[in-house]
Amino acid sequence: MYAAQVKGALLRAAPTVPLVDLTHDLPRHRVPEAAFVFRAMASSFPPGTTHVAVVDPGVGGSRAAIAIRCGEGSVLVGPDNGVLAPLARALGSPEAFRLDPRTFSTERRVGTTFDGRDLFAPAAARIALGAPLGRLGTRTPFHDLHLPEATRSGSHARGEVVHVDHFGNLISNVPSEWIAPSALRLSVAIGGRRSSRVPWVRSYEALGRGRLGTLGSSFGTVEVAVAEGSASVRLRARTGSRLEFQWDGGGVAATDTVNSVPNLPRRRR
Amino acid sequence: MYAAQVKGALLRAAPTVPLVDLTHDLPRHRVPEAAFVFRAMASSFPPGTTHVAVVDPGVGGSRAAIAIRCGEGSVLVGPDNGVLAPLARALGSPEAFRLDPRTFSTERRVGTTFDGRDLFAPAAARIALGAPLGRLGTRTPFHDLHLPEATRSGSHARGEVVHVDHFGNLISNVPSEWIAPSALRLSVAIGGRRSSRVPWVRSYEALGRGRLGTLGSSFGTVEVAVAEGSASVRLRARTGSRLEFQWDGGGVAATDTVNSVPNLPRRRR
Amino acid sequence: MYAAQVKGALLRAAPTVPLVDLTHDLPRHRVPEAAFVFRAMASSFPPGTTHVAVVDPGVGGSRAAIAIRCGEGSVLVGPDNGVLAPLARALGSPEAFRLDPRTFSTERRVGTTFDGRDLFAPAAARIALGAPLGRLGTRTPFHDLHLPEATRSGSHARGEVVHVDHFGNLISNVPSEWIAPSALRLSVAIGGRRSSRVPWVRSYEALGRGRLGTLGSSFGTVEVAVAEGSASVRLRARTGSRLEFQWDGGGVAATDTVNSVPNLPRRRR
Repeated sequence: MYAAQVKGALLRAAPTVPLVDLTHDLPRHRVPEAAFVFRAMASSFPPGTTHVAVVDPGVGGSRAAIAIRCGEGSVLVGPDNGVLAPLARALGSPEAFRLDPRTFSTERRVGTTFDGRDLFAPAAARIALGAPLGRLGTRTPFHDLHLPEATRSGSHARGEVVHVDHFGNLISNVPSEWIAPSALRLSVAIGGRRSSRVPWVRSYEALGRGRLGTLGSSFGTVEVAVAEGSASVRLRARTGSRLEFQWDGGGVAATDTVNSVPNLPRRRR
Repeated sequence: MYAAQVKGALLRAAPTVPLVDLTHDLPRHRVPEAAFVFRAMASSFPPGTTHVAVVDPGVGGSRAAIAIRCGEGSVLVGPDNGVLAPLARALGSPEAFRLDPRTFSTERRVGTTFDGRDLFAPAAARIALGAPLGRLGTRTPFHDLHLPEATRSGSHARGEVVHVDHFGNLISNVPSEWIAPSALRLSVAIGGRRSSRVPWVRSYEALGRGRLGTLGSSFGTVEVAVAEGSASVRLRARTGSRLEFQWDGGGVAATDTVNSVPNLPRRRR
Repeated sequence: MYAAQVKGALLRAAPTVPLVDLTHDLPRHRVPEAAFVFRAMASSFPPGTTHVAVVDPGVGGSRAAIAIRCGEGSVLVGPDNGVLAPLARALGSPEAFRLDPRTFSTERRVGTTFDGRDLFAPAAARIALGAPLGRLGTRTPFHDLHLPEATRSGSHARGEVVHVDHFGNLISNVPSEWIAPSALRLSVAIGGRRSSRVPWVRSYEALGRGRLGTLGSSFGTVEVAVAEGSASVRLRARTGSRLEFQWDGGGVAATDTVNSVPNLPRRRR
């Protein structure tokens, strides 16, 4: 519903600009998780895209509204709460402008100001139509949110779950490329609990239905997954859970220890 | 899935017309709530838009299919069950036409008639392409649903929850502008329960995470909210719950009484 | 989120091609159910549409990626796990091509290969822009999934629940046209339980709110529904539940036996 108001406002100001929904399933109030996902989503889009992100628990509060122009021509519009920052840095050469609400006053407004509809959408529409950012606001530093980074020591990494996708897969912040190419298994410890050795595979199929394992996610990081099931439920893990991975250079996979992580009682959902 | 059939039928008849999803999360069978949300959503859209609403518990039954032309050029297509009426009146000068199903018989139909796919979508497509309504049906009165209205007596208002948004915020039908500009707190009574004094704020941020309060919603009405939480769960309230608000002209906010509404046991979800 | 990556990749390769979301609510890992719904959804779309289906529990595994050209000009792109097959046969004259991943190597790839983003989307984009399939891959037989078919003997049919829609309606695979035009009631037995006689109606409205009955679905098959309620919850039935229907040529409807199916205890959700 709020998304519909944003889309309406975009079309009102820029009827001919193609509009694409990225997702409406982002975690509602968790800015760092949303920033992580937004970075991964939007980097697939064409250069020159104008993105609007309305993950904004501080809506109507003191945080500014900004537009960030990136080197390759994309512009990110949203609240200055950090949600835009990781993508902006990934796209490169970010320059932020603080949007002046007076520039976007509309004649026809329903109820209390909703920045997504009344500010971000009209700004994005003008930007998509070619307005230079300097006319919509003034240069500003921005909230340069840094996502938690994993650390590595030899064949051991510490990180955390930075996203739980809608299948219940646990997406970590440990780069997949850290894992030795010859590794066949990973020791996984979650939330300080006892570690277990599970397969390191290239596909859910290689894991086998209902089995727990690890693989490279489409985010470029290690993912802990249950094939056709939910690792989040199985392991009672969530965004923010600490993770440790240990790997070796490979060797023979002892199938008898596969899935030695116990089947914890399922959380009621 | 049913939405996809509607979209397919629209594109089949009008391949070049831009198509925008408003929302697929409307309450399924609650026509008045859907009508309230539809009015708020669609009024952000550009004049001249053709809207299709398929909130239609009476599908295939005796209710007519209609298209309503409004003064500013928009057309609303859907069932004559009241879902279109509040928006039509808000846009002004509504004139309804009863759609004649025989006009839209399609050569290739799967299964039982589904009006969204077989009637509303083809009608909306022709309208978006410029067909005059008079050629698609005949003038008709329409089910002129009136949403429940709040009443006011001095600094006291009675109304109800007319929508629970997907954050769990309780959207009332009490206009925000009734509240005295100098008010700092509202006494809130829900469902006939004991009233509690909570802050009247301009943003969730001003409320503080996890705290209960009231603010102006983007619907133009008073909203009861828990910042980054669910007021619906906390207060065990839902669409249709009675609400009473009492305000004064302001004064010093006694922070010790903030959130005196008890934390009721959470409903299991 | 994964859908957003797919859409980004589509737009990156074909910025001017209109993009329509069919649905993101398909059953996650159930290929036959998804294939059933996909067939029903997509057959409403205009001839010449390029469809992408990413219901792909075997992602990254040994199954091929294919594009199927159909007689009327549409092309279906996705995994060769059967999800495309029923629609392809319904559209007619299917010819499949195995997509060569090397044709679609992109300069800028995040993380592990995600076929939806890295293969299906770029292929679909080129196809939508006019590339002949023969240039994107080589002719191949495809996994010709056949959905379970109902059987009939006189006025008795055996089938199964092939889809539970988001209202909780049980969509069977028994063609509606098998039911005698004069029938007023159906005996329904689910999952081998005792049968009950319920109305066979033309609309939910004819059933009456909260009442159980049967009607023709928009899939062309018999549907077991509770008007404004969930038959899946009421009858504890799910995709795969066996169904038997028995009908007669009509007669007087004895309203006292309506809804004789007991109200089973509701499953906790």
